[in-house]
Amino acid sequence: MELTVLDEIEKIARAAREASREMAAAPSSVKNSALLAMADALEKNRERIFDANKSDLDEAKKNGLSGALLDRLKLDDKRVSGMAGGIREVVALDDPVGEILNVTRRPNGMRVGQMRVPLGVIGIIYESRPNVTADTAALCLKSGNAVVLRGGSEAIHSNRAIADILSSAIVSVGIPQDAISLIPTTDREAVKAMLKMDKYIDVIIPRGGYELIRFVTENSVIPVIKHDKGLCHVYIDASADIKMAGEIAFNSKVQRPGVCNAAETMLVHKDIAGKFLPGMIKRLQEAGVEIRGCDKTRELAPDTVEATPDDWDEEYLDLILSVKVVDSIDDAMSHIAQYGSAHTETIVTNDKSEEEKFLKLVDSSAVMVNASTRFNDGGQFGLGAEIGISTQKLHARGPMGLKELTSLKYIVYGEGQIRE
Amino acid sequence: MELTVLDEIEKIARAAREASREMAAAPSSVKNSALLAMADALEKNRERIFDANKSDLDEAKKNGLSGALLDRLKLDDKRVSGMAGGIREVVALDDPVGEILNVTRRPNGMRVGQMRVPLGVIGIIYESRPNVTADTAALCLKSGNAVVLRGGSEAIHSNRAIADILSSAIVSVGIPQDAISLIPTTDREAVKAMLKMDKYIDVIIPRGGYELIRFVTENSVIPVIKHDKGLCHVYIDASADIKMAGEIAFNSKVQRPGVCNAAETMLVHKDIAGKFLPGMIKRLQEAGVEIRGCDKTRELAPDTVEATPDDWDEEYLDLILSVKVVDSIDDAMSHIAQYGSAHTETIVTNDKSEEEKFLKLVDSSAVMVNASTRFNDGGQFGLGAEIGISTQKLHARGPMGLKELTSLKYIVYGEGQIRE
Repeated sequence: MELTVLDEIEKIARAAREASREMAAAPSSVKNSALLAMADALEKNRERIFDANKSDLDEAKKNGLSGALLDRLKLDDKRVSGMAGGIREVVALDDPVGEILNVTRRPNGMRVGQMRVPLGVIGIIYESRPNVTADTAALCLKSGNAVVLRGGSEAIHSNRAIADILSSAIVSVGIPQDAISLIPTTDREAVKAMLKMDKYIDVIIPRGGYELIRFVTENSVIPVIKHDKGLCHVYIDASADIKMAGEIAFNSKVQRPGVCNAAETMLVHKDIAGKFLPGMIKRLQEAGVEIRGCDKTRELAPDTVEATPDDWDEEYLDLILSVKVVDSIDDAMSHIAQYGSAHTETIVTNDKSEEEKFLKLVDSSAVMVNASTRFNDGGQFGLGAEIGISTQKLHARGPMGLKELTSLKYIVYGEGQIRE
Repeated sequence: MELTVLDEIEKIARAAREASREMAAAPSSVKNSALLAMADALEKNRERIFDANKSDLDEAKKNGLSGALLDRLKLDDKRVSGMAGGIREVVALDDPVGEILNVTRRPNGMRVGQMRVPLGVIGIIYESRPNVTADTAALCLKSGNAVVLRGGSEAIHSNRAIADILSSAIVSVGIPQDAISLIPTTDREAVKAMLKMDKYIDVIIPRGGYELIRFVTENSVIPVIKHDKGLCHVYIDASADIKMAGEIAFNSKVQRPGVCNAAETMLVHKDIAGKFLPGMIKRLQEAGVEIRGCDKTRELAPDTVEATPDDWDEEYLDLILSVKVVDSIDDAMSHIAQYGSAHTETIVTNDKSEEEKFLKLVDSSAVMVNASTRFNDGGQFGLGAEIGISTQKLHARGPMGLKELTSLKYIVYGEGQIRE
């Protein structure tokens, strides 16, 4: 049995590797035609998608999934059109492949530069909604890569239908079908097997919860780009404008609490805490936010819950905010280094030297001054679409757009140079 | 026992993480003073190094190491001065840390850019000569990183002495001692433990043979930048200048056959084989090169060994060259894709369209036109010193200099922007 799964995964991975060589040579115009064909095919095959989605929904109901989760899973006319629209937006993005950079002439006359090329075969392992299947396939294709998708079991019927529609559509413009493939089983052994295929797969991007990311990190021999949790901090400096600080803290926590770039902890300099915290906490509480405060916070706002040590470590993804009064910016940065997940941190300040210190020394994918943590996002940063937000330091950090799905190789133009 | 090793490694890794925070803030002038202190200390402590080195040499002789290996291991006055000189050269290189790039203004007025920052803690696992201890420590320090070194068992006494001298030297200028540390045991369990410390170590760079790289890849939960083998190809196109082709092929194979960027296989277009191969093979044979040829090669040069299928797969690192006649550039590129190690490939051609095709589609860390494969090197490419040559696609490909030991984080300058 295990051998069969392994054989099947190897077959898919090898075919993707072969397709990736054709993908690397595909001109932008052909890739764009493929994207348009993908979008059209999704819209033309709505009924097939709905049928498959109904199987997933039926199963989910049988398994007692909650209403919110059922809603995430459900595909309707609007959502299929949304997927198609998302793919069409990728057509308009610049093709990063083939760009030549950093050319210099060496003393021996040789010119050395770098050329942007696709990564090759990208493996995406995700737990999210079925629209991820279409979004990620489009981004991988536009950046000249082949993609091997492995979605969650709850959406397996929908994912299979979508991947099949997409890979059939690209054939019509001359792109190999294997440039988009989906692992058709939800067997965990299949993921394990996929993670050993370093001969065929160049990078694995896991998108999901802690368990998934840990499983992938521990089992992969293929380089991984993690999209880990966001335990984001807002630090209100002594010199902050009270009104601006209130707006930024409120927006960072409340605007969309369930996402990775929402704030989970607010750190407040002791010299501004008395003026700032009572009103701020009241405003947050009125918006339904539960405050878990340190001792000093609770002196200023007794109507709050006591923060336990675990609170500094928790990504609530909910209307809960932990609040701590700190003695200095150094204390704030130490707290962030100890408890943060290196995702997004912001300082509210009017002091240029504190601003510079925070920007330089806080070690996160995005470090901000006087702006909401909610801006750490490919669209907001101007990258166009994003495949996710990387929380690791190698290769790509923060929102990953098309460029982050490519690699730079050295190129050399000689006229017969040899080494002495 | 295992617990003790684990505890010890964790202590070293945690201390390195703490030191890395200070390193990130260290100004260039302080880092340069530290480098000068390191170089001076090596020269001042020659005798201590020679004593330690003698222990390694004695052990090596007892274990029956060959003369060449003993020579690699031996440290004398010239080699210690060479290490010190190498460190002083790093002083002159530009400090990459703090550079701000790609700043754009978003429609809401927010400015978004990227800042170059150290990776944090770099783990280097190597088998090579003891000078690697000094070279890599210098590059990691200049790029603002802390380094945890783990050298081979045959050089353990020398490595311990060198690392101790270096880490003591940096304290004198205010850099924390733990910014340079060495795993003092040669226990394999220690490496395994090190590879699980993703809480403290940001990247592992293995330098060594296939076994070492495989062991690291399979056991590491920390991102790895592989410095793998070089199975490099020279392709002689139909349009090549015969004289230039001969010079480049000869240089690529013979100039220094034991290194990763030396050529192992020559591919020759059938239309030029008759004119090119007999003379070329004779010249290589006269230089002591054993030729292992395909059938067509052996028709043109009967005085050669028959290549077996294994030959296309082998990194000889010796005066042996496999030679194959191919029908087209596409056949050459297919051969490279199947057997190459994605290290260095060169085409000799006078045809612009073949040149472009080769540059675009060959998927290696360096792809060259009309130049020797031996140029894939940090010094030759103008990077200054290099920590090695990466053969993977993520983060850094080809020679890795100081910039490749850093990461880019997003930075945002706002004036109170919040997300709608």
